[in-house]
Amino acid sequence: MGKDKTSFNLKTPKGTKDWAGSDALLRDRIFSTIADVFKRHGGTALDTPVFELREILAGKYGEDSKLIYDLQDQGGEICSLRYDLTVPFARWLAMNSDVRNIKRYHIAKVYRRDQPAVSKGRMREFYQCDFDIAGAFDPMVPDAEVLRIVSEVFEELGWNGRYTIKINHRKILDGVFAVCGVPEDKIRPISSAVDKLDKMPWADVRKEMVDEKGLDGAVADRIETYVMHKGGRELLDRLMKDETLNANESAKAGLTDMGLMIDYLEAFGVLDKISFDMSLARGLDYYTGVIYEVVTEGSAPAVQSDAPEAQKVQKSSKKDKKTSEDDDRSNDPTLGVGSVAAGGRYDNLVGMFLPKAQIPCVGVSFGVDRIFSITKARLERDQAAQGLRRSEVDVYVMAIGGKGFNGMLKERMEMCQKLWDAGIKAEFNYKLKPKLQQQFKAAEEGGIPFGLILGESELAEGKVRIKELGLKLPDGHPEKDGVDIELVSLIPELKARLEKKQSGSEVSLAQQLQGMQV
Amino acid sequence: MGKDKTSFNLKTPKGTKDWAGSDALLRDRIFSTIADVFKRHGGTALDTPVFELREILAGKYGEDSKLIYDLQDQGGEICSLRYDLTVPFARWLAMNSDVRNIKRYHIAKVYRRDQPAVSKGRMREFYQCDFDIAGAFDPMVPDAEVLRIVSEVFEELGWNGRYTIKINHRKILDGVFAVCGVPEDKIRPISSAVDKLDKMPWADVRKEMVDEKGLDGAVADRIETYVMHKGGRELLDRLMKDETLNANESAKAGLTDMGLMIDYLEAFGVLDKISFDMSLARGLDYYTGVIYEVVTEGSAPAVQSDAPEAQKVQKSSKKDKKTSEDDDRSNDPTLGVGSVAAGGRYDNLVGMFLPKAQIPCVGVSFGVDRIFSITKARLERDQAAQGLRRSEVDVYVMAIGGKGFNGMLKERMEMCQKLWDAGIKAEFNYKLKPKLQQQFKAAEEGGIPFGLILGESELAEGKVRIKELGLKLPDGHPEKDGVDIELVSLIPELKARLEKKQSGSEVSLAQQLQGMQV
Repeated sequence: MGKDKTSFNLKTPKGTKDWAGSDALLRDRIFSTIADVFKRHGGTALDTPVFELREILAGKYGEDSKLIYDLQDQGGEICSLRYDLTVPFARWLAMNSDVRNIKRYHIAKVYRRDQPAVSKGRMREFYQCDFDIAGAFDPMVPDAEVLRIVSEVFEELGWNGRYTIKINHRKILDGVFAVCGVPEDKIRPISSAVDKLDKMPWADVRKEMVDEKGLDGAVADRIETYVMHKGGRELLDRLMKDETLNANESAKAGLTDMGLMIDYLEAFGVLDKISFDMSLARGLDYYTGVIYEVVTEGSAPAVQSDAPEAQKVQKSSKKDKKTSEDDDRSNDPTLGVGSVAAGGRYDNLVGMFLPKAQIPCVGVSFGVDRIFSITKARLERDQAAQGLRRSEVDVYVMAIGGKGFNGMLKERMEMCQKLWDAGIKAEFNYKLKPKLQQQFKAAEEGGIPFGLILGESELAEGKVRIKELGLKLPDGHPEKDGVDIELVSLIPELKARLEKKQSGSEVSLAQQLQGMQV
Repeated sequence: MGKDKTSFNLKTPKGTKDWAGSDALLRDRIFSTIADVFKRHGGTALDTPVFELREILAGKYGEDSKLIYDLQDQGGEICSLRYDLTVPFARWLAMNSDVRNIKRYHIAKVYRRDQPAVSKGRMREFYQCDFDIAGAFDPMVPDAEVLRIVSEVFEELGWNGRYTIKINHRKILDGVFAVCGVPEDKIRPISSAVDKLDKMPWADVRKEMVDEKGLDGAVADRIETYVMHKGGRELLDRLMKDETLNANESAKAGLTDMGLMIDYLEAFGVLDKISFDMSLARGLDYYTGVIYEVVTEGSAPAVQSDAPEAQKVQKSSKKDKKTSEDDDRSNDPTLGVGSVAAGGRYDNLVGMFLPKAQIPCVGVSFGVDRIFSITKARLERDQAAQGLRRSEVDVYVMAIGGKGFNGMLKERMEMCQKLWDAGIKAEFNYKLKPKLQQQFKAAEEGGIPFGLILGESELAEGKVRIKELGLKLPDGHPEKDGVDIELVSLIPELKARLEKKQSGSEVSLAQQLQGMQV
């Protein structure tokens, strides 16, 4: 405890942060909003250790494996911090082979030793919110429910339709590449080039295909006739009539799936949120069917289409490609650029751990850090900003008195006991004799809606004063200085006032955000 | 993805486990019950990174520092997994010196490379639930509120008074040791011997003091006249009259604090849960004032007092002392043996990081893993075991039909949409044409309270059947096969039935547990 200890480097590790105050409160409300939707669909919680045996993670993330955090070998097993929540889920399914089907959700931190970009929200420690359905069912039924869940989450968060769920199908993409004449070994690289169409114009993507990846220019031009399309059922109908495409088995299977998907999304009432986007390819190799990504206004960078801009992008990508890609990248590389949720069907991952336990899966991961930033910005634009309170306390118990006033500590304590017993969130000042102004200030800084003011003579008469805080009432208003309430009816009176207050202001994030101009 | 990959060691790392199914559900209910109490008292969430710079943790845990998990040096900062939630809180306070006072709570995992004893619930990764109050206030006011919180948590968990909060004061202990003649340098070792009185008889503790720690036998005998006492206000009154003790400044200050504490606990209505226990010393060095520990029936090992048993303890402690101590130890070494929560006042910890930011603190840590085991055992003894459902789904939507039945998938989906829109938790079978038996089985295995049965002719008439599941109704009962409801009144009807059902069975853990014979 000597003074030399002050040379501590007083900080959190690089790429990590503390969550406190109104940020932590808002984030927790986002978590519970999302978890409520998961539970409404029968989701059950799974919690896995923060570290796994290193061999469990090995070979799952391609070249991103270099970003895995390792624990030091202190004797015993060799472990690493988890990189996502999907591989631990697949490991759990393989270990629990009596579980043939499950809807599981998991809200937890994951770890990536990436170059952090705190200002862009890319951290080394960050949260994922995952929902996955494992089990062999009839095609597209669970897949459609996952998209219904996606839509429900954003509606509950108050985004009110201001988002688009882009969907595509790996089998359609594979079919398109085959009928266009992409050689087998070039399918993944060409697919990843197509995936960049949300941030680059076609001319640049074509250049990458031809110049960097050695694709025949005519093949690239045929690809263009497919991947530039987006739409709904009418796009599917058009593709269904494309004889060349339907002659390809993979494409035909994908189109059939997509037809079912569109029917089911209609039955779930979410078809209007969907864009069938043929350029969506997603980065991860393990997807085998439907893939999707959610974007919202302003969350994705605009496509650069004018020539000077395109040149600029091209130049910087030559000079310092790594950094430029990095800067545009999401916090979470498993999400696409600018997306707030993403996922798809992965039928072969569990089999990597235990071939006989092959269990098909479909799921989605919400990028909560980005959802947090967008939600916070929207709330902050709302001047009332009711949602940014630091705590959830409803009543501040205070005392007032004249000369010889003893502070009424015991009475304040007993009043708090009464409120806590009734389940009411309440605080009081820890000083023996706090000043009235101090007490009002603490209550108002905390955004606490009600003050309960004890006075000796009022208490002797069996009364206590309730004052709604933060109101600017005109002089002469009957509640200007609060109202005296009989002690016997205090709890029901307070509960009624709290209920009235809450139904007016902060029942849910949805209600807070839906009325806003964004 | 070759077959050789099946040689994976398919397990979680030593001392860690997955939480799934009804265990995860029950644990989450315990967490939210505890967090609700924390929020009721104005607690705000703080979330810190799972790892800290190694120098932050260094020198805080004495010889237990060897149990800290280190991250591998992969270039950059040297980090370790957090060992508890208290040191990160103190680090945060030192970093945020504008925060002069706060009530913070933190529910999160901590890590200790200890020898795991899974059967006894001692893990390398386990949860802590901490509530702490930082700030300079009038003596004992926040301390008393922390104990009120402890009591509220166990009441909300349904323990219904079946627990004891043992309290003592470091300054009283120090005073006792001084007036008994314990040399300054022996105070901590003698204090830790006294702390063993909850699992060893006085004779053994005395032997340890005299034989192992070299204390004068007469001094030990004087200590006995103090530390064997426990009680309430009457014990305090007796000590207040002890002139020798009151001549010691430390003891006098501690006794004054304890007097205030007892007054405040009375105002908070929790004095009946308290035992002023002069043998309570607690292991950690950093406590500076009030200390406490919560025990429940059966959570602490019985004190061995008959001679043969005592001999046995003594023998084994000679032969294999380390293991024997280990076996008796709590999952969480910062808790005492057999305790379910513990804490105290620590006024100097923040100053270890930044002397000028010295902020006095008082807090408590709940041992959730042990609370979980006790709660689960109590629930399992109750045959109804309503609380051990795997999910929270309320309605299972199914379909029934005769020959040529198409499975009514779209109708089941649309019905689910209606329920989800109304916020009702609902599931359906993902098969196109599921058998009715399959659907009933799935609903009953999940413990889902209501089935909603769609039939083509009923739907055509604008009706749907509700059946309460898991009832054994006699033949001829009007609801034996469920009741048909008009579609227009389905949602209010379902909500009313759900509310009725819930108010009868599983509103809170407290209600579930309080009626039980334990």
